[in-house]
Amino acid sequence: MEKMAANSETNSDSEDQDKEYVGFATLPNQVHRKSVKKGFDFTLMVAGESGLGKSTLVNSLFLTDLYKDRKLLNAEERITQTVEITKHTVDIEEKGVKLKLTIVDTPGFGDAVNNTECWKSVADYIDQQFEQYFRDESGLNRKNIQDNRVHCCLYFISPFGHGLRPLDVEFMKALHEKVNIVPILAKADTLTPNEVKKKKFKIREEIEQYGIKIYQFPDCDSDEDEDFKQQDQELKDSIPFAVIGSNTVVEAKGKRVRGRLYPWGIVEVENSAHCDFVKLRNMLVRTHMQDLKDVTRETHYENYRAHCIQSMTRMVVKERNRNKLTRESGTDFPIPVIPGANDTETEKLIREKDEEVQRPHLECEPEHTYGLKQDEHSSLELHSALGPDPDPETS
Amino acid sequence: MEKMAANSETNSDSEDQDKEYVGFATLPNQVHRKSVKKGFDFTLMVAGESGLGKSTLVNSLFLTDLYKDRKLLNAEERITQTVEITKHTVDIEEKGVKLKLTIVDTPGFGDAVNNTECWKSVADYIDQQFEQYFRDESGLNRKNIQDNRVHCCLYFISPFGHGLRPLDVEFMKALHEKVNIVPILAKADTLTPNEVKKKKFKIREEIEQYGIKIYQFPDCDSDEDEDFKQQDQELKDSIPFAVIGSNTVVEAKGKRVRGRLYPWGIVEVENSAHCDFVKLRNMLVRTHMQDLKDVTRETHYENYRAHCIQSMTRMVVKERNRNKLTRESGTDFPIPVIPGANDTETEKLIREKDEEVQRPHLECEPEHTYGLKQDEHSSLELHSALGPDPDPETS
Repeated sequence: MEKMAANSETNSDSEDQDKEYVGFATLPNQVHRKSVKKGFDFTLMVAGESGLGKSTLVNSLFLTDLYKDRKLLNAEERITQTVEITKHTVDIEEKGVKLKLTIVDTPGFGDAVNNTECWKSVADYIDQQFEQYFRDESGLNRKNIQDNRVHCCLYFISPFGHGLRPLDVEFMKALHEKVNIVPILAKADTLTPNEVKKKKFKIREEIEQYGIKIYQFPDCDSDEDEDFKQQDQELKDSIPFAVIGSNTVVEAKGKRVRGRLYPWGIVEVENSAHCDFVKLRNMLVRTHMQDLKDVTRETHYENYRAHCIQSMTRMVVKERNRNKLTRESGTDFPIPVIPGANDTETEKLIREKDEEVQRPHLECEPEHTYGLKQDEHSSLELHSALGPDPDPETS
Repeated sequence: MEKMAANSETNSDSEDQDKEYVGFATLPNQVHRKSVKKGFDFTLMVAGESGLGKSTLVNSLFLTDLYKDRKLLNAEERITQTVEITKHTVDIEEKGVKLKLTIVDTPGFGDAVNNTECWKSVADYIDQQFEQYFRDESGLNRKNIQDNRVHCCLYFISPFGHGLRPLDVEFMKALHEKVNIVPILAKADTLTPNEVKKKKFKIREEIEQYGIKIYQFPDCDSDEDEDFKQQDQELKDSIPFAVIGSNTVVEAKGKRVRGRLYPWGIVEVENSAHCDFVKLRNMLVRTHMQDLKDVTRETHYENYRAHCIQSMTRMVVKERNRNKLTRESGTDFPIPVIPGANDTETEKLIREKDEEVQRPHLECEPEHTYGLKQDEHSSLELHSALGPDPDPETS
């Protein structure tokens, strides 16, 4: 029921100008309005070894410590160093916009003596959420699907390593095709500005060198203003975000700020000369949250889903061929296949999709032959696609 | 890259107020921005007997005659009285918002001597769009799916009938579970205000009486202001929208308006004392376009999809049982079923969904027993779900 005021907004250059306004320019507002009514959800995973300030940063980002006297928001107390994957959900509201925020905390790395495949439980968790969503969206009733897919993983890198450590590389490579990874240089108050600069450069170089695909900020449109473009470039150059977390409010130059009080001065969390906290928060919450969700849905989830369908289709085709050999006629047994695609079409699509999905792997591991890699992959997925229904309670 | 200006917008009641702003209140703006970038599409169907001004009204609504010197927008000339289903797409832009508008024109009713089942080609067309979308969204590559589902059907009722005619009832009942029907009282310049009022009342009464489910405007939120609520109630009371179309600009009281020049006066299309044209346009374009799309996606399409899955699942279960009888062991043959649902769960869901879908039918045709109705329905769908792949070129 937009009022006709919209008409008078047009800059009339003729008396009939406002008559020429149809009104579909209100469509984005209709979408805006509906999104506010429905509310938002976001699932953030934090990963990295214990003691790097993961919980403190999350509290600082979402100001969850401000609500500690409210029962539903005591994530602060519950988000502690854990050895299992834990999930905390808080409902927060700001200017009438509702957000259901889920924080997934992961095992502390490097805590064990042998950390081989310690990323596996995290990868499995992400896959389980995809699997559950795939089941739900393939099901009969899709009205109240709960979407637990992980939209972003903040990966905390220790400030003490000389760049990335082998475990960091292994973790990110195991997860980079499943989730949007945003690397964080943790506890940056132990590094001088020059050290931060050097370490960031080294880490970016190694990310490139090891073929790790972190979350890519979408490119600026050519029609954006210069100010916007500059901010966007600064954001891209800030990777990995060097952050300092604090839930304590201290007095600095007569103002109360979130910070850390040292004998040699006060570290202000929200001072961009001190660290990238504000940049990270702006990116994660104010500018790219919706894009993180879109990339999760359109890229990571679609890749997972394509793998599943490929495995199932291969199995059906194989069974059908076997059936043809053992029975007089295989055609009287209707096997439902993917609608709209006959065998050849499906196989063609699978090949295309395989190539698309495998290409990045090839780039980082050129010693593998294409055929071998593909077979390894397929059998793995066949196993996971046909495995027993995981207990949703344990995830 | 929203600027920090957002902070200063908060009405600070303490010096720390702006520090407490996390920033996720920008989420609706992120959605807004993305929707503008992506652009919109809308598919509108017009139905009703020839000569009721369907084409003229569409031109008036979307001002397509304004663009007649542009080649891509000459829908006006092409949207003529047709005997087959035709589709015209125009790309229009307003204030930077892009809309791909598709108009689906339907056969003129009442033109033939025998009009039995003349709604069938229209119903088939809508189902074919659903079927295509179901194939596409079940397929491997979902990146560039074209959505041709019909979001709204303006059904034109003749001003000369005493309320609804049998054909009107039959058409709307055949389509009301497939598409959002918005009834239009056509050529309202042949009716006095009193006649319009009476005819509207009669038609609303008959719609109720025959159990026709037209598009329901969503309920107002309790937190809306009174002005909004009143406009909403007026809108609901306007059904069927009494309209007069015109692509001619005439001079009325010194102003140039779209209208019709009679010896006894000028009918102004956009004068709300003359007809409901502005009300219809506001509803269709400015306030409810997104809701029409959402209802199509969430209700009509989901119903279609559920029917398809039910038929396929029933067939698989039946085949599996037959297989058990003719083979020593049926278990070594893996038939892929709907993920996440075993037979009993699926059957339970099907029963629930059946009840949900069938209920409205039962209300209008209480003489049918539930079981019979269900079987009739299933066999129909089984047929259509398994029928040959329709040629997409013909739709």
